[in-house]
Amino acid sequence: MKTRFILINTSHAGNVGAAARAMKVMGFDDLVLVAPRWANVLRREETIQRASGALDVLSNARIVETLDEALDGMAHLCATAMTPRDFGPPTRAPRAHFAELLGSGDTLSNKELTAQAQNAQKPDSVAFLFGSERFGMQNEDVYRCHVALSIPTNPSFSSLNLGAAVQLIAYDWREALGGFSVQAAAAEPRLADAAAVSGMLRHWEEALIGIGFLDPASPKKLMPRLNQLFNRAGLSSEEIHILRGVAKAMLAARPSADKTVPVRGNPPAPADTPAAS
Amino acid sequence: MKTRFILINTSHAGNVGAAARAMKVMGFDDLVLVAPRWANVLRREETIQRASGALDVLSNARIVETLDEALDGMAHLCATAMTPRDFGPPTRAPRAHFAELLGSGDTLSNKELTAQAQNAQKPDSVAFLFGSERFGMQNEDVYRCHVALSIPTNPSFSSLNLGAAVQLIAYDWREALGGFSVQAAAAEPRLADAAAVSGMLRHWEEALIGIGFLDPASPKKLMPRLNQLFNRAGLSSEEIHILRGVAKAMLAARPSADKTVPVRGNPPAPADTPAAS
Repeated sequence: MKTRFILINTSHAGNVGAAARAMKVMGFDDLVLVAPRWANVLRREETIQRASGALDVLSNARIVETLDEALDGMAHLCATAMTPRDFGPPTRAPRAHFAELLGSGDTLSNKELTAQAQNAQKPDSVAFLFGSERFGMQNEDVYRCHVALSIPTNPSFSSLNLGAAVQLIAYDWREALGGFSVQAAAAEPRLADAAAVSGMLRHWEEALIGIGFLDPASPKKLMPRLNQLFNRAGLSSEEIHILRGVAKAMLAARPSADKTVPVRGNPPAPADTPAAS
Repeated sequence: MKTRFILINTSHAGNVGAAARAMKVMGFDDLVLVAPRWANVLRREETIQRASGALDVLSNARIVETLDEALDGMAHLCATAMTPRDFGPPTRAPRAHFAELLGSGDTLSNKELTAQAQNAQKPDSVAFLFGSERFGMQNEDVYRCHVALSIPTNPSFSSLNLGAAVQLIAYDWREALGGFSVQAAAAEPRLADAAAVSGMLRHWEEALIGIGFLDPASPKKLMPRLNQLFNRAGLSSEEIHILRGVAKAMLAARPSADKTVPVRGNPPAPADTPAAS
């Protein structure tokens, strides 16, 4: 999907750099500036510093005088506006709107499915328009748009930085388009099977009796509790090995390692076992 | 849900300010800095400038020497790490993890539901840990965490600014907690009913015949096409009025406004009507 970010009357060079970086990190590269405060904003030191490696986005960026020029070739226009207007395109949260726009709206409530969305065809290009830091978007620019996106924010502090707003919209749009995958660790450890877990638990039971922690005459729910704990932890085969090693060491360390029958009657009171269970 | 943001060894004051603003805009206020580069970072000019009104977050922030102190009272620990590790907590995308954590994981695929998540109880507090700008999180800090959150980014440019990362995590977490509502315009206009639309269309049909655009002997699919167009647009009652006003003006402007029967045979060829439909 052709995607363009359009910054209108931006005054802080740092925000242009931050926007370029925010776009690139989400895989977008088409940036157009409409009448920025600084004509040389793409080459200013602060811009380049905040862009931090997204220099290709800056060097491909266009500076134009009017919004008309910036909208060239763009079908679906999204204003970004934090303050509601009593006239203009409908105000929507980005995620809900993107789901509608891309046709995954069937997971939304009927309330959110406007007549518009039900009948709309998918556009082939989307432009996101951002107003100036101080004044936001002008009404006449908002009126040209199909939707006013409003990022849901703290009602008592909705002052979102321009670069941060670009970052959030770029993220939501990328996720709506299918998203990048998370680089997981090379291989997630395989869960040990139930037989491995119960074998380990028998080993531990023997060891805990051996060191006098578990009284076989009054086992209470110690072993089921440990079983539940290890189930929640989702043990890997490697961890089964570690835990069996601990059991083995406990058995080797018990006071009478040569005995096979545990001493009855005088184990120390199990400190961690609840009094009743 | 008790939520804390922990910045470890942060070196840029501007990022601390940006993090405070990013948190507040999503309704969070508990910020702890572990051994920042600047001891006076909470009072530096760049910090205050980038915080832009989130000064209460800065003034409530704590600076501590060790991660242990920062984790006081926190149950569920989320590392943020862009690079995978071959050992450590599982790597997850924030949205998927938050859905699991808060128990809305039944919309996820089975593949994503680990044994862990199926059995886990909801924590009452969550801490998000962010490493330094240059080196990210140290392994020993990651090992303490329950999960390594990785924001899905462009595989060839995953260099997310620290403030931007805080902003995205704060946003996803706020949305997972239920989200803020979008301030919609005071009242969305009511859709006109079908009778109002077809009445307006009959008015237009008359007017288009009147001005010679529509040949009633060969109407093709002009009126159904207009009907479809207006259906997609989802007309409000006010817009019905406007369109009827246009029809009325067309009728008044037709060359022979006194005639009630349109001139047959010599209207100009309808420029916009397809030859066959």
